[in-house]
Amino acid sequence: MTRSDETNVAFACRALLKESIRYAEMGWMRGTSGNLSLVLARDPLRLAVTASGVDKGELTAADVVLVDGAGTALSGPAPSAEAELHARIAAVAGAGAVVHVHALAPVLAAERWPGGVPLTDVEMLKGFGRAAHGDKVVVPVIPNDQDMRVLGDAFETGFRADTPALIVSRHGIYVWGTDLRQARHRLECLEWLLRFALATSAEHPERGM
Amino acid sequence: MTRSDETNVAFACRALLKESIRYAEMGWMRGTSGNLSLVLARDPLRLAVTASGVDKGELTAADVVLVDGAGTALSGPAPSAEAELHARIAAVAGAGAVVHVHALAPVLAAERWPGGVPLTDVEMLKGFGRAAHGDKVVVPVIPNDQDMRVLGDAFETGFRADTPALIVSRHGIYVWGTDLRQARHRLECLEWLLRFALATSAEHPERGM
Amino acid sequence: MTRSDETNVAFACRALLKESIRYAEMGWMRGTSGNLSLVLARDPLRLAVTASGVDKGELTAADVVLVDGAGTALSGPAPSAEAELHARIAAVAGAGAVVHVHALAPVLAAERWPGGVPLTDVEMLKGFGRAAHGDKVVVPVIPNDQDMRVLGDAFETGFRADTPALIVSRHGIYVWGTDLRQARHRLECLEWLLRFALATSAEHPERGM
Amino acid sequence: MTRSDETNVAFACRALLKESIRYAEMGWMRGTSGNLSLVLARDPLRLAVTASGVDKGELTAADVVLVDGAGTALSGPAPSAEAELHARIAAVAGAGAVVHVHALAPVLAAERWPGGVPLTDVEMLKGFGRAAHGDKVVVPVIPNDQDMRVLGDAFETGFRADTPALIVSRHGIYVWGTDLRQARHRLECLEWLLRFALATSAEHPERGM
Repeated sequence: MTRSDETNVAFACRALLKESIRYAEMGWMRGTSGNLSLVLARDPLRLAVTASGVDKGELTAADVVLVDGAGTALSGPAPSAEAELHARIAAVAGAGAVVHVHALAPVLAAERWPGGVPLTDVEMLKGFGRAAHGDKVVVPVIPNDQDMRVLGDAFETGFRADTPALIVSRHGIYVWGTDLRQARHRLECLEWLLRFALATSAEHPERGM
Repeated sequence: MTRSDETNVAFACRALLKESIRYAEMGWMRGTSGNLSLVLARDPLRLAVTASGVDKGELTAADVVLVDGAGTALSGPAPSAEAELHARIAAVAGAGAVVHVHALAPVLAAERWPGGVPLTDVEMLKGFGRAAHGDKVVVPVIPNDQDMRVLGDAFETGFRADTPALIVSRHGIYVWGTDLRQARHRLECLEWLLRFALATSAEHPERGM
Repeated sequence: MTRSDETNVAFACRALLKESIRYAEMGWMRGTSGNLSLVLARDPLRLAVTASGVDKGELTAADVVLVDGAGTALSGPAPSAEAELHARIAAVAGAGAVVHVHALAPVLAAERWPGGVPLTDVEMLKGFGRAAHGDKVVVPVIPNDQDMRVLGDAFETGFRADTPALIVSRHGIYVWGTDLRQARHRLECLEWLLRFALATSAEHPERGM
Repeated sequence: MTRSDETNVAFACRALLKESIRYAEMGWMRGTSGNLSLVLARDPLRLAVTASGVDKGELTAADVVLVDGAGTALSGPAPSAEAELHARIAAVAGAGAVVHVHALAPVLAAERWPGGVPLTDVEMLKGFGRAAHGDKVVVPVIPNDQDMRVLGDAFETGFRADTPALIVSRHGIYVWGTDLRQARHRLECLEWLLRFALATSAEHPERGM
């Protein structure tokens, strides 16, 4: 690792730590679940990713790994296997940051709408980068798998540039943006939208949202 | 901006920041949603309003805008488009502070009671400025719109001086008072009442509240 | 007020402040709702009670009132009207501390079981001072009223020494104990029990608990 | 107690205190409910256990008890009666730490699945030490009892080395691991899984999970 890499990883670590603590406090990273990444360079692709098996509320500098575009570690401890999917999302979507959390609402929404979660005509969609009126958003849902290539292919098949999120069924959610803050804002708004969708569909089960 | 304006905006900023952090921690300002305003002068009307696109848990002095009675910025960054509605509520209702949050319960209540949310015979109504017994409160619900004039007209049509709140369907809630503290107390009590109404109507769907 | 009274009130204030902040953070004292009291002397009865209309997360020494057995202020600002009920509970039950909060679960339970909330065969009943097995607890529910004498009479009619709680329908809950800590433990356990009762009765609506 | 015992208990106390505060803040140790233990020695078995009747958010060094393999106190205040079950779990499962909390979801799950809670095909199962796919997990449920020998026998009858948890019906949950951190990670993931199971079974009551 060059000195410049080290500096970048140190910077990324502080940024990832701040987000991790926030998500952990929200109950979205229970146990050691979830992981966050930040793109450090584009060509070739380099990401700082949180390490596997670490409590995200207790992250330290030693728990952030530098990986390449295939999710392979260039330094530090073993990255999460999911680093490969982070790298693929960053490459395909051109994202600067990818957050993956185990919030409950997305996983419940995937059970209810296994073909994709429909969302439309809600103000909060603006916080997800879409329009508040007449915009028919469908958040892709893919089956869970331990093979990151299978997940990555399913992600790429359903990818649309205007929909910066992916729900992995019976697993969790990925949301991305140009940086960690935009990814966070999108995630928070989407999680709210999914709770709204679940609560209102329970009342009127005959119609979707 | 005169020096006196600057002093007022600086004071307002601290007050708005304190409330913002509180609401953000309650999950009522996810992403960059919601905005708060404080009336600084009446004639002509001047409000300090939180800026657009800012994370409300990270507000700084630079994120508060001075606007006039039309919601037009007199200083600082672009205000939220919703500043126009804040100003109109302040003018029509004579409010000293207006808070707009994206709590979930009001939006769910608007889905269930799109013609206005009925609340009666609950002690918490006193915290909303109404009576605990025999007082038939109806919280107005209006359709969402991106045109603040449309929202403002709908607000004014349904305005009653004794009902300091407005739910914008599939969007969020506005609550106001003489100052930020009274607005907060009313908002907190109303949000509790809406959760109570939703929970009890789910049990007895045949009757309203 | 004698110097000894002042010392007692100052002590009580710190204790009440600590509990207030805790309950406020739990969302059980929204707006300015709820009030807490601590018995300072028995004969004649003297209680320190939180003042009316105060945000319980922002309590200061000036917000605690010394009242007599009729709930009449002996010093300080106007007490909550509910101080009269606090005093009556302290007298009848021999309690050293009474806490009144607007948690949602008790109010929902009163809607479901207006004749009293039945609780039996749950370990958490031990934290309420009852037995975990075979003990048929019924938490009294009385109608809401603005006349504290009416509430007090209804309380006394249903009072049983082994059941340190009272739910006021469409209002909130009172729980008491020898001191603020015991009252808190009983309240926390009872609130948990009421959420359990509501959740399980929703699944099996045909049977009570 | 030898000096070495004292040192161990002091160390255990800090570790138990940290976990206690965390669980208390999550609402899983309401009142004085729940208790935590840490194995200090194996042969003979020695555990540090939290004392009975203590508010787990206010734990001090004086509230941790050294017990033997029968749950009998070797020092300090009276341990919780449940210390005997902690010791038995530590002995039978070879656990280094046992946590017992009164979270609501496990108790609700035991009402719905009194013969054991089935969980399968969810990623979060990895955080519980099981596989994310095709692994049919059943979390044992036993009836509540005040006799720790009865509880311990029921635990041992249903014990499987690959399932580090036990739900006591209408009471709470025990989870264990090699240390307090692993026990915590398993507990947090399992609690999430139980909320997921409850929410999805409510939608599709005809099928289990």
